[in-house]
Amino acid sequence: MKHFTANVTVTLRSSILDVQGKTVEHALHSLHMPALSDVRIGKHIQLTVTAPDADTAREEVDDACKKLLTNPVMEDYSIYLTEVVAAEKA
Amino acid sequence: MKHFTANVTVTLRSSILDVQGKTVEHALHSLHMPALSDVRIGKHIQLTVTAPDADTAREEVDDACKKLLTNPVMEDYSIYLTEVVAAEKA
Repeated sequence: MKHFTANVTVTLRSSILDVQGKTVEHALHSLHMPALSDVRIGKHIQLTVTAPDADTAREEVDDACKKLLTNPVMEDYSIYLTEVVAAEKA
Repeated sequence: MKHFTANVTVTLRSSILDVQGKTVEHALHSLHMPALSDVRIGKHIQLTVTAPDADTAREEVDDACKKLLTNPVMEDYSIYLTEVVAAEKA
């Protein structure tokens, strides 16, 4: 069995108003940072997958995203999967 | 002035117990997905930066992270900055 690290980024669909992002944007402008705009806030989920190959690992993560991690009606997600080749502690 | 897109990933420091991640991990196992483990949940923040150059843009985002977006005691963050070369609507 191989080990993979999956980084899942979950973002609100662009057509949906991001209230949290708007609030942060206002706060940034109040802190005299007018150069920052269009703030959108999402989730970042990191997990370890144990699977025989990369395809199975990707499917497993995709399944988890659809069933639990995201709301497919309102959110988009992207999966970035890397294989752990060596993990040592010095 | 140039436009940049910054993707900030905020994660809890590895020494800090991630209660939300543990809960999600238990939920995944209850859904018969034992291959997924070590779940850690963080934030993903996307914003647009207007600045004369990339260095200024990076500093501006770094400043925002330190002052508002992250808790430097408990969280780590990474910034991924890209320059918007063309933005057209079809």
